[in-house]
Amino acid sequence: MSKADYYFNEEISIPIDKVYRFEKELYQAAGMNEADAHSVAEHLVEADARGVYSHGIQRNGIYLERFRLGGNSINGRPEVIKQFGATALVDGHNAMGMVVGNYSMDLAIDLAKKYGTSAVSITGSNHFGTCAHYLQMAADAGMIGFVWTINCVNIMAPWGGTERQLGNNPFGMGVPCKTKDSIILDMATSVVARGKIVMARKTNSPIPSEWALDLDGNPTTDPEKAYWGTVQPFGGYKGYGLTFINAIISAILNGSSFGEEIIDLYEEPGKVQNSGHLFQCINIDAIDNLTDFKKRMDDAVDYLKNGKKAADVEEIYVPGELEAISQKKAKANGIIYPVEVIQECREQAEKYQIAKEFWL
Amino acid sequence: MSKADYYFNEEISIPIDKVYRFEKELYQAAGMNEADAHSVAEHLVEADARGVYSHGIQRNGIYLERFRLGGNSINGRPEVIKQFGATALVDGHNAMGMVVGNYSMDLAIDLAKKYGTSAVSITGSNHFGTCAHYLQMAADAGMIGFVWTINCVNIMAPWGGTERQLGNNPFGMGVPCKTKDSIILDMATSVVARGKIVMARKTNSPIPSEWALDLDGNPTTDPEKAYWGTVQPFGGYKGYGLTFINAIISAILNGSSFGEEIIDLYEEPGKVQNSGHLFQCINIDAIDNLTDFKKRMDDAVDYLKNGKKAADVEEIYVPGELEAISQKKAKANGIIYPVEVIQECREQAEKYQIAKEFWL
Repeated sequence: MSKADYYFNEEISIPIDKVYRFEKELYQAAGMNEADAHSVAEHLVEADARGVYSHGIQRNGIYLERFRLGGNSINGRPEVIKQFGATALVDGHNAMGMVVGNYSMDLAIDLAKKYGTSAVSITGSNHFGTCAHYLQMAADAGMIGFVWTINCVNIMAPWGGTERQLGNNPFGMGVPCKTKDSIILDMATSVVARGKIVMARKTNSPIPSEWALDLDGNPTTDPEKAYWGTVQPFGGYKGYGLTFINAIISAILNGSSFGEEIIDLYEEPGKVQNSGHLFQCINIDAIDNLTDFKKRMDDAVDYLKNGKKAADVEEIYVPGELEAISQKKAKANGIIYPVEVIQECREQAEKYQIAKEFWL
Repeated sequence: MSKADYYFNEEISIPIDKVYRFEKELYQAAGMNEADAHSVAEHLVEADARGVYSHGIQRNGIYLERFRLGGNSINGRPEVIKQFGATALVDGHNAMGMVVGNYSMDLAIDLAKKYGTSAVSITGSNHFGTCAHYLQMAADAGMIGFVWTINCVNIMAPWGGTERQLGNNPFGMGVPCKTKDSIILDMATSVVARGKIVMARKTNSPIPSEWALDLDGNPTTDPEKAYWGTVQPFGGYKGYGLTFINAIISAILNGSSFGEEIIDLYEEPGKVQNSGHLFQCINIDAIDNLTDFKKRMDDAVDYLKNGKKAADVEEIYVPGELEAISQKKAKANGIIYPVEVIQECREQAEKYQIAKEFWL
């Protein structure tokens, strides 16, 4: 998940702050309150800066359409509807997924401070962006964070099946280090995140043949055919098993949408998603000393990175490192976008009558 | 992970109870107390019955040798050395992994009953058998169980590396259903568990070429070469990421062995392992109603199994289903063993002077 995974015909570089300000203006113009617009803008820009374009501002169009058509509630407020010990059940009340996500991870962190660990089960939510954002919140709070979520569309078949019955439900874990960047594992249970296929379709860029199958079950490099076909689970039946488990703990656990109840984020923008997530935290200080742990993490990262490399490999990376490098570059030099995405932003700016000074 | 994965030259079928009685006698004869011998016997026989021969009685030899040489403590007792809210840190005091595992999952279940969720971090442990056993304990208690563990030998390289720096650290989740068998996902982060290579080496059976690489990095069907080479992560860099995360939450979290501290279960039988695990439970009743949840699980299993099948597929399976089928067959007809494993048991029976009536 880095810039290198994408194929841009024409590029443009824009400072992070400028993108953030535009995004905040855009969501406020659409009717969102300032605090929530900040959360959304921060999240989307962070994804782009980290090179995870599939989850960045290219999603403005669908998010705004979903607000307009009632698929999402632009000023919905998440709420704890059940609380027991170190657990909570949150109803997102169809608020923007990032708003529900921030609320729920804050709660998971608070509960883990009090009880050492926590499990926050979330229903009535939507697409919440990247797992990485919430994992970083946990790591910054001295926690090991776990994030599990159902995906917003069924794109995978069970192992041995041919029907779109499962999402490539993403999950991840976040771990703090001492001087190194946090370890942030954020993966979908497919070979690639479907957002990458959406992004490739938008720029009409060919995709690697191992990403997806067409409707007949054949590998394809055509992003249009891939968009309508199925995505393969990573690691074969193991990825299938993980995506089902993820669906269970994210959605079936609390009665959120699963299977035929899942609607398509893109194709059914007026329909409520009722997405489910699960956030867990372990307070490292409850188990061991956080300072000692962070030192051990630094040592572990050094150990792996100093391992013998294969002939064609320049560097061994740990999970989240490539994204952290991308983020630092973006902070220094701006985020590199394909012109098609910026053109979309300009159309959105016009439609939502954003003041010219904020335009990208 | 079923009988079909193995290639036995000559087979023999033995009733479950008979194998259990022999195993219990054997470990008691080696100096273990009756309760612990029961735990070990139950665990190993269950693994074989479920078709997971890699984790069954074929391990008697190495376990007994480790007791004899001081690698494991045959009557060690696990102990809680730190407790905070819904978390606990357990020191296994080098007791048999199954003893530490049962103790720790019982504790995780108790804590989750009280707090809704729990995290039990375990240090000073050993090879604990299959994750599936503890996951079933959690599911039987109305919990969603999570089990994470460091492996007992480094057999994988980091992505882009060539050195054996990581184990194929196994993990899994267990979930109860209403009328269906529990969903038990139990997987190593390699394409296959290394125990399968050990088993194939024992019977000198060829292995599929995608399981392992030889020392030069070439795929091999020779179990001897695979034994000394490296095992590939499942799903490429994603499996690498997961195995590192698993090492972090199982071992680095509490200071158990990681990296160069990891000893080889088989090659260094006199050395203490100091293995780490993490057990987590979510009490389903804390989030939603257990009865309703189990019904939703039954529906979810039906939904997947009733999906359209690929041309050459007879049935779609859910995680743990093949093992549950194997277990039912074994209960009815006995466990099918390769003669080599039974011959080992007879040698062990002789060595430990087991009464003839218990011999396999």
